[in-house]
Amino acid sequence: MSNIKISMNQINTKVGALDYNSNKIIEGIKEAESKNCDIVCFPELTITGYPPEDLVLSNLFVENNLLALKKIIKHTKNITSIIGFIDQDKNGIYNAAAIISNTKIIATYRKNKLPNYGVFDEKRYFSKGNEIVILKNKEIKIGISICEDIWEDYEVCKIESDLGCNVLININGSPFDINKKNIRDSHLSNVAKDCNSHLIYINCIGGQDDLIFDGSSSIFNNLGEKIISLPSFKEKNQTINIDISEKKYTPYTKNSKNGYKIIEKNINFNNSNINNVNNINMNSYSEGLEDILSALVLGTKDYAEKNGFSKCLISLSGGIDSALVTVIASKALGAENIKVVNLPSKYSSDHSITDSEKLCENLGLNLINIPILNTHEEFLKSLNFLFKDTEENNAEENLQARIRGNFIMAISNKFSWLVLSTGNKSEMATGYATLYGDMAGGFSVLKDVPKTLVYQLSNYINEVSIKEIIPQNIINKLPSAELKSDQFDKDTLPDYDILDQIMESYIEEKNSVNEILKNQEITKNISESKILEILSMIDRNEYKRRQSAPGIKITPLAFGRDRRYPIASQYKYTYRNFPSS
Amino acid sequence: MSNIKISMNQINTKVGALDYNSNKIIEGIKEAESKNCDIVCFPELTITGYPPEDLVLSNLFVENNLLALKKIIKHTKNITSIIGFIDQDKNGIYNAAAIISNTKIIATYRKNKLPNYGVFDEKRYFSKGNEIVILKNKEIKIGISICEDIWEDYEVCKIESDLGCNVLININGSPFDINKKNIRDSHLSNVAKDCNSHLIYINCIGGQDDLIFDGSSSIFNNLGEKIISLPSFKEKNQTINIDISEKKYTPYTKNSKNGYKIIEKNINFNNSNINNVNNINMNSYSEGLEDILSALVLGTKDYAEKNGFSKCLISLSGGIDSALVTVIASKALGAENIKVVNLPSKYSSDHSITDSEKLCENLGLNLINIPILNTHEEFLKSLNFLFKDTEENNAEENLQARIRGNFIMAISNKFSWLVLSTGNKSEMATGYATLYGDMAGGFSVLKDVPKTLVYQLSNYINEVSIKEIIPQNIINKLPSAELKSDQFDKDTLPDYDILDQIMESYIEEKNSVNEILKNQEITKNISESKILEILSMIDRNEYKRRQSAPGIKITPLAFGRDRRYPIASQYKYTYRNFPSS
Repeated sequence: MSNIKISMNQINTKVGALDYNSNKIIEGIKEAESKNCDIVCFPELTITGYPPEDLVLSNLFVENNLLALKKIIKHTKNITSIIGFIDQDKNGIYNAAAIISNTKIIATYRKNKLPNYGVFDEKRYFSKGNEIVILKNKEIKIGISICEDIWEDYEVCKIESDLGCNVLININGSPFDINKKNIRDSHLSNVAKDCNSHLIYINCIGGQDDLIFDGSSSIFNNLGEKIISLPSFKEKNQTINIDISEKKYTPYTKNSKNGYKIIEKNINFNNSNINNVNNINMNSYSEGLEDILSALVLGTKDYAEKNGFSKCLISLSGGIDSALVTVIASKALGAENIKVVNLPSKYSSDHSITDSEKLCENLGLNLINIPILNTHEEFLKSLNFLFKDTEENNAEENLQARIRGNFIMAISNKFSWLVLSTGNKSEMATGYATLYGDMAGGFSVLKDVPKTLVYQLSNYINEVSIKEIIPQNIINKLPSAELKSDQFDKDTLPDYDILDQIMESYIEEKNSVNEILKNQEITKNISESKILEILSMIDRNEYKRRQSAPGIKITPLAFGRDRRYPIASQYKYTYRNFPSS
Repeated sequence: MSNIKISMNQINTKVGALDYNSNKIIEGIKEAESKNCDIVCFPELTITGYPPEDLVLSNLFVENNLLALKKIIKHTKNITSIIGFIDQDKNGIYNAAAIISNTKIIATYRKNKLPNYGVFDEKRYFSKGNEIVILKNKEIKIGISICEDIWEDYEVCKIESDLGCNVLININGSPFDINKKNIRDSHLSNVAKDCNSHLIYINCIGGQDDLIFDGSSSIFNNLGEKIISLPSFKEKNQTINIDISEKKYTPYTKNSKNGYKIIEKNINFNNSNINNVNNINMNSYSEGLEDILSALVLGTKDYAEKNGFSKCLISLSGGIDSALVTVIASKALGAENIKVVNLPSKYSSDHSITDSEKLCENLGLNLINIPILNTHEEFLKSLNFLFKDTEENNAEENLQARIRGNFIMAISNKFSWLVLSTGNKSEMATGYATLYGDMAGGFSVLKDVPKTLVYQLSNYINEVSIKEIIPQNIINKLPSAELKSDQFDKDTLPDYDILDQIMESYIEEKNSVNEILKNQEITKNISESKILEILSMIDRNEYKRRQSAPGIKITPLAFGRDRRYPIASQYKYTYRNFPSS
């Protein structure tokens, strides 16, 4: 039995902030040293932040990242540090982990499996590694890997296990989605058990454009039991002692396996740990609605802060979406930094104003009131000569949404407040939103939140609070855009629970129209023609989504880089009976 | 000496239009058969259109593409057809070419080299092939390849040459940019010469979202001489007879080479060709400004048509950008389908109106006039209580641009006219454009056209026309946004020729700040601090570009999927002296 003392640094890096990230890493190393840790580890691409996207294509950026590593190396003394960085040689650049000890790089692990699906474009940037890196100290053998290496058939981990590793360290930039934690936990447990190794999984936290990283770093023992779990959506520096049993394995003398070159390095351990075993504890590990709310709050906070905004502006409609966004923003930046404006038109109901006032009262916000009636009249007057013999259509409706967009953008430009737009995923899917109107804004908080989840989150917020936050009437009333008289969402869209079910099946589960039409859970509530109409709406509104603000991905498949559809596409749901002639 | 008669089908496919594309292919095959051709070939992914993006991730889409191929196969008689499609097996899907003869697939070539850089994401979708496919008829051996296979070290072509091929057929979806044709011609010539083979290069034409394909299909003989060139930006079905000399080569008996499995198939030739050799001719091959103009015209036409619009709407400012867009749109859709509106504010100069009127007179357009003064006043009145103690800033300026955006979107919604936005690349780079204001629109015609090129194109249009099209005063006047009194672009931006030089260096050539500061061609005209200011503007305006309409890529590096920068990025030009502490 040997003992290892590890410091896990679940940090919030900033993309491109080489100085900031380096200083954070140096602090983490110093603290781990002061606690006599043997190993200190950080998330994937710690130095550059994750994902750095096309910044990586700049040679200067890569060189600067290497200079940052050089600076960090000077601060590494009697501890083994594992730090994510971009490595470079004459053949390409690599998503890599530097293993540093006593001011020297003792080994470099280069990610062997590069994800190039979903939101990931790693083959655009990186060459893949071809080495297995193992760190040894007496009975302990540690195999290094990066993120994707541990997924699918986890070939790298299996080889490391075959070579006698009883500890696997996997550093990550693994974005959150509502299904991810369960899938991840169960997969990591399986890898640890299958490889008969302790598995140390270290993830970053924080928002980066449309991605949010949840952290939830964890350690699984060689039986696949989770023995520690770091909090979700919070920075955490955790020190832990683990007892590791010697592993029986067949010694392997060749210097390559499965085509990978094998690198083995001895590392030093501090012996001070043996009588100093921590109690193993489980940190707060949130789930379900709490998780989603945390993701939205941290995503909003980080988008604002990382783009230099201290205050946000929201247009309150009296509806549930803008109410929820206001609550999220208040939690993210503090109510004192949230500005709200009410922009009533002639179609605005009395309750849209009173409900918004009530919400502001509950949150301690001042509601700025700007009626849009006169401006709307002026627009219609100016357009009368063109529109007078036409039927009213969405031109007149959208005009109001765009007048509101114009007001909030003017206020944003005047005071440098970040506009948060309030549309939800169901609206983004069906195009039930006005481009440059309610879609105007720098960040779209609910972009990936289906309407039914908007309700669940709103109810949850009230439930966990000692007093009502979102007025019950906002939750109870029928959703309406209030862009013409007696207009309700249900006049145009099916019930949101049915719509969201179709959306989940079509978008997130990538089911075809044939599969959806065979799903009795869906067809029992809605006609075939209505289903086809919804799929057609989803297909043809790609052009709107392409001009939408970024928003936080929380589902397994979000609009944006996760779903790259052509705008000009003739392939519609009608192709289910191909060839049509 | 043997003879081969080939039909080259340089067609404009539509992404996702399986029926439309299939019918076009069947027509092409029939016509080639009627001309007794031996081989008929079509561009890359002919059946699906290119690039199909995430449509490819739908199993049903791939199945339907296979059904379309099945339908096409029935129409192939006494001719060998080479058609791009998505192939599928249990291991994945493939960007492939079906080689079909007498209603049978006789071989399938799967693209061996998958591009995953720039605008390409092919590793997101496709598995790579591992076979070389060669078609034989007596002395003639034809090696098949797809697009990227012929680039870089053209390994596939070299192997085919080693195996005795004296004809190489490469099918393409190769997007246009202003440097591409020269680079492509010189590379193809080199490949043909190096492989001592005739090279038949077949490309598609047409616009697809932000890409435009120029066609320019060509044939090079085994000396690297271009012997035929199809027109650019036009559909063309070309039949050609080529005499091919027998090639001396060392027979190779193994069934694999460089890890590729070798597939050789005999194909039938029609013997009717021998005494029927065409004169080899050079078709119209445009270059320079003519090319760029053709790209913009076809790109606009195809975006409108492929998205179901017959009419376009443009807001005329009296400036050169909107004038050029109007000319391009008139060429694309016919002047009778172009609607123009003038939206003067209190800052609009007299000449902005008279110049727009002159342009409309030249093009035969009716100018709709809607002054925005009253609406602007109403906005300011409504905002007065908030703005009264503040200094005027971009809030008041942008308000006017957004009022205009609101007017054109209202007219667009009313009459279903596609709004063309008029910003150029220099503005997109520096953020000298108003989000939801002049950036509003479905398609951004000049998005990748630097301002200096806007001038060149405008002068070119007048030069090649028998009468003045763009009024000279529009070309001569100082550029101005006219959003406040006596405002000129040069108050905020450097001269456009300097700005465009910096932009080209930083964006298209991916030079670092250090390299730009060392370039005396740049620094002789502008101070270091001004250069840094411009780079900073380019960096920080990613958020605007992310919400911009798609536009036609014509440079080697366009904004959009070609340049994937994070919005929240702390990496700025200032990092040139890293580490800063």
